Amino acid sequence: MSTAQTEQLQKILVAGQWRDSDASESFQSANPALNEMLPERFPISSWSDCEAILIAACEAAEQLRALPSAKIAEFLEAFAKQIEANAERLVSIANLETALPIKPRLSDVELPRTTGQLRQAAAAARSGSWSMPTIDTKANIRSCYEPIGPVCVFGPNNFPFAFNSVSGGDFAAAIAAGNPVIAKANSSHPGVTKLLAELAQTAVEETGLPSSTVQLIYRLSHEDGERLVSDHRIGAIGYTGSRRAGLALKTAADAAGKPIYLELSSVNPVVLLPGAVRERGEELVTEFVTSVLMGTGQFCTNPGMVVMLASTETDAFIKAVAAKFAAGTPGTLLSSAVKKTLTAAIQTLSKAGAEVLTGGSAVEGKCSVANTLLRINGAKFLSNPEVFQTEAFGNASLIVVADSVSQLAEVLRSLEGNLTGCVYSAKDGSDDAHYAAVTPHLIQRVGRILNDKMPTGVAVSPAMNHGGPYPATGHPGFTAVGIPASMIRFGKLTCYDGVRQHRLPAILRDTNLSDSTWRNIDLKWTTGNV
Amino acid sequence: MSTAQTEQLQKILVAGQWRDSDASESFQSANPALNEMLPERFPISSWSDCEAILIAACEAAEQLRALPSAKIAEFLEAFAKQIEANAERLVSIANLETALPIKPRLSDVELPRTTGQLRQAAAAARSGSWSMPTIDTKANIRSCYEPIGPVCVFGPNNFPFAFNSVSGGDFAAAIAAGNPVIAKANSSHPGVTKLLAELAQTAVEETGLPSSTVQLIYRLSHEDGERLVSDHRIGAIGYTGSRRAGLALKTAADAAGKPIYLELSSVNPVVLLPGAVRERGEELVTEFVTSVLMGTGQFCTNPGMVVMLASTETDAFIKAVAAKFAAGTPGTLLSSAVKKTLTAAIQTLSKAGAEVLTGGSAVEGKCSVANTLLRINGAKFLSNPEVFQTEAFGNASLIVVADSVSQLAEVLRSLEGNLTGCVYSAKDGSDDAHYAAVTPHLIQRVGRILNDKMPTGVAVSPAMNHGGPYPATGHPGFTAVGIPASMIRFGKLTCYDGVRQHRLPAILRDTNLSDSTWRNIDLKWTTGNV
Repeated sequence: MSTAQTEQLQKILVAGQWRDSDASESFQSANPALNEMLPERFPISSWSDCEAILIAACEAAEQLRALPSAKIAEFLEAFAKQIEANAERLVSIANLETALPIKPRLSDVELPRTTGQLRQAAAAARSGSWSMPTIDTKANIRSCYEPIGPVCVFGPNNFPFAFNSVSGGDFAAAIAAGNPVIAKANSSHPGVTKLLAELAQTAVEETGLPSSTVQLIYRLSHEDGERLVSDHRIGAIGYTGSRRAGLALKTAADAAGKPIYLELSSVNPVVLLPGAVRERGEELVTEFVTSVLMGTGQFCTNPGMVVMLASTETDAFIKAVAAKFAAGTPGTLLSSAVKKTLTAAIQTLSKAGAEVLTGGSAVEGKCSVANTLLRINGAKFLSNPEVFQTEAFGNASLIVVADSVSQLAEVLRSLEGNLTGCVYSAKDGSDDAHYAAVTPHLIQRVGRILNDKMPTGVAVSPAMNHGGPYPATGHPGFTAVGIPASMIRFGKLTCYDGVRQHRLPAILRDTNLSDSTWRNIDLKWTTGNV
Repeated sequence: MSTAQTEQLQKILVAGQWRDSDASESFQSANPALNEMLPERFPISSWSDCEAILIAACEAAEQLRALPSAKIAEFLEAFAKQIEANAERLVSIANLETALPIKPRLSDVELPRTTGQLRQAAAAARSGSWSMPTIDTKANIRSCYEPIGPVCVFGPNNFPFAFNSVSGGDFAAAIAAGNPVIAKANSSHPGVTKLLAELAQTAVEETGLPSSTVQLIYRLSHEDGERLVSDHRIGAIGYTGSRRAGLALKTAADAAGKPIYLELSSVNPVVLLPGAVRERGEELVTEFVTSVLMGTGQFCTNPGMVVMLASTETDAFIKAVAAKFAAGTPGTLLSSAVKKTLTAAIQTLSKAGAEVLTGGSAVEGKCSVANTLLRINGAKFLSNPEVFQTEAFGNASLIVVADSVSQLAEVLRSLEGNLTGCVYSAKDGSDDAHYAAVTPHLIQRVGRILNDKMPTGVAVSPAMNHGGPYPATGHPGFTAVGIPASMIRFGKLTCYDGVRQHRLPAILRDTNLSDSTWRNIDLKWTTGNV
C-alpha cells in the first residue's frame, strides 16, 4: 500500500504504541441494521506486524513474570473502571457494528458481565489459588501453575465485550494468569475492539504494567494466522469462532506443540421428556422460544436441536412453537456472513430431509433470516446423524421426534461433542425412568448438563464448564468460562524440587502469601503456612 | 498366517479372554545380555483385533461409570498384591528381556515403586478429591472431572514395571480415574507385559470389575496404531517413548480431537555454577557420574547435557568425569535398537563438532556402548543448538563450556522444552547472582527445576511434575507422574447446572462422600457438606 493509503487506516497497537500497520490490504466493518459499510478502514496486517508484536510480547512476558500478581490485579480493575467510564461510547459503537440492542443486552447485560469477569479475574490473580500450589513437605517438592507465555486471543463475532479478544473471558484469564495478550480483533467489530484496546492501554499505563501487555491487530491472512499460532514464542492460543477456521488454526498449533483452546460449534440438544411436555407444555413453548430467539439465536449455547417423543402433546408443542416463530419479527443478524451461513445450514438440513415448518429463507433487503423451525423423525435423523447436526447459527432449530425411548437414546448416542445438553422432566417424577435411560448417553457427549433449564445462560461461576468433547472444543478437560478454572488453560505446570527457600516463588514458600490463598499441603487444602 | 502358525503365538487379552490374535506377522523379544532371541513368539495384531478391543472397551467404560470408585480402588489394591505375590517371576522375566539388574533395580526399587503407585492411585480413587469437585451453592452449578473414556497406553522400553502399559503410572492413573485401559506392550518386553496382564486379569476377576477393564495387544503396524489413537471410541492416549513414533501418533490423535499425553525425549540440562564446582568439585563428579551411568543412562531424566563456565576447576571436573567414565564397564543396553540409536546420536554430536573425550563407539559383540563424554564450547553450541540437543539416550553426556555467564544464559535460552533442569550453586551464596541471572531462562523451558540434585530420581509425589514444554511432552500443563495430579489427564470436565439432587453424582451432592474427600465449595476447599 502507498503511504497515503496507509495513513487513512486505523492504527494497530504494538509495544505500547498505536502505529501504522505494514498492511497489504484493508477492510471495513458493516452496520448490519442499515446494511451499509462503516467509514473506518482497518489494516490487514502482514507478517512483519506479527514479528514486531511477538518480540514485544516476549519482553512483556519476562517482565510480567517478575511482577507481584497484585499489580496484575490492579490493572484488571483499572481496566474495568475504564470500561465503565466509557460505557456509553462502547455500547454505541458495539451497537453500530453488531446490531445487538443497546438495552438491555449491551449496556445492562454484556458490559456488566465483562467488567464483573475482569474483577473476578483480578481477585483470582491476587489470591493465587488458581495456580494450585501443591507442597510435599516430606520430599520438599513443590509445584504450581506459572504463566505459559504470550497468549494469542481470537474473539468471536457474537459478544463484542464479554468474549472480545481485548476484554473477554480468554483475555481476562490469560492476563490474570500472568501472560501478555496478542489480540486478533473479530473482523465484524474492529471499532469496538480498538476502543477497548485504547482503554486497556490507558489502564496499562495507569498501573505501570509492561507496555506490551496488551497488543492488537485486526486481521491477518489465513497463512499468517497459522504462522502466528505456531510460532515458537507463543505460549498458548484461545479461539472462539467457526469450526472451519478454528480447526485450521488447531492443525497449525498442534503441529508446533502449542496448546490451543477452541470453542467451536455446538447444537446444544434439548431433550423434552414426555411427562414434562404433558405437565407444562405451554410453559416449555415460551421458555424454548425465548431461548432460541434471544440475540437472534447467535449464542454458542443456542438450543439448535430439540429431541422429543412422538405424541399428540409433542405435536401441540411443535405447532405452538411454529406459530410463535412465525409471529415474531426476525432480529437483525450480526453480519451478512452470518446470514449467508445460516441460510446455507437451513438448506443443508432441509435438503437432507428435514421438514421446514416455518421460516426457512432469508429476508429480502435485510440482514435477517425468518425464524426457522425444522422437524425430522428419529429414524431419518439416525440415517444421517452427521448432516442433521449441521449447526444453524442463528434463529433456527431442528426438532427431532423419536418414536420410542430407545430410539431417543440412539439419537443421543449418535451426537458428536456439544457444549451443553438439557433434559426437561416432569416434576412429579414420572419421567425419572426415562431420564435414567437416556441421560447417561448425553452426559458423555456434553460439557454441561442442565435440568429444566435452557442452555443460553452461561453464568461466570467457579463451577461452570463452558467446554465439552470435540468438536465442541479441542479438549474435554477445560472450560472457557468461569474463574479461576479457565485460567489453568494459560498456565505451565512447574515443579521446584529441593529448591532453596528464598529462591521459590512467593506462593510456594513456607509462609503463605495471604489468608485467601489456598494451597494443597501434603494432600490437604489449607490457607495456612507449611 | 496359517492356523498352525497362529497357534504357536502368544495370545492377546480381549474382553476378558486370552485369545488368538488375528495376526498378520509375529515378533520375538531378545535377551540383550546374551544377545539372543527369546523363544516366545508374539503376534502383530491386525485391525480386527483393535476393533474387537474397542467394542469391549466401550462396554467396560459404561459399566465402570456405574461402579462406586471404591470398587476400582479394590481392584488396584488386589493387583498390587498379585504383583507382590509373583514378584520373583516378574523380576526374572523382566531381567531376561531388559538386562536390567535384578537387585537392587528390579526387585527392590522398580517393583515396590509400581505397587506403591497402584496403592496411591487406589487411595485417590477412593477419596475422589482428584476430580476437583466444585460447587457454587448460590447458582446451584456443580462440576467435577469424570472418566474420559477408554484410554490407550503405550509404555516405554526402559521401565518394565513402573511405566509398563499394564501396571505403570499411566495405567494406574487411567484406571483410578474410572477408565478401561487398552494396553499396547512395548516390543522389547512383551513377556513381562503378558504376565502383568494375567495378574491384572486375575485381580479384575477377584474384585468383580468389568471383564474388559484391562486389554492387551503386543504390537501393531504404524498405520493401525494411528488409526487406533484417532478412533472415535477412544477417550485419551498416554504414550511414553521415542519422539518420532510419539509425534506420528500425536498428529493422528490431534486430527481426531483426541487428547494425547506424550512423554518424549529430553536432554535434562544440568548447570554447574562456578562456586559449586570450586567448593565441591569432587563430590559433583561422583554425583554426576552416578546419575548419568545409573541404569546405563536409560532414563528419560538422564542428565544428557552439563553446562559450565570455563575455568581450571571446570577442566579438572571434566577430566575426572572422563576418567571415571573410561574406568567403568559400560552396562548392557535394553536392546540392540537402543545401541543403534545411541551410537548414531553420538556420531551426530561428534560430526557436528563435539569433541569425544572418552568412549564414542559401540562395544563389539555386546549390547553396549562405551561410556561416552563429549565436550563443546558455548559459541559452537550456539551456532547449531538444535543438533547439539540431539538426545543420546543411554550412557553418554555432552558438556557445554561457556566463556561467560551471559553466554551460559544464551545456551539456556536456546534450549527446547525439557523435563528437568538442574542448577548446582555454592552453599555460601557466592553463586546467587549467577543463579538469578540464568535460572529464569531455564525455568521457562523445563517442567521441573532442581537445586543441587541430579534429575534421575522422579518421586511419586503429589507435587511432582514429570512433564514440561514441547517437545519434552505435548502440553506443558500435565504431569505423567504423581498422584492425584496425573489422573486429571484422563478426566472429562462435566458440569451439572440446576440438576436435581438425587441425580447428581454422589461426589457433588450436598452431603459429602467421605471425610477424605476435598471439594471446593464457594471458592473454599473443605471436606464438609454443603
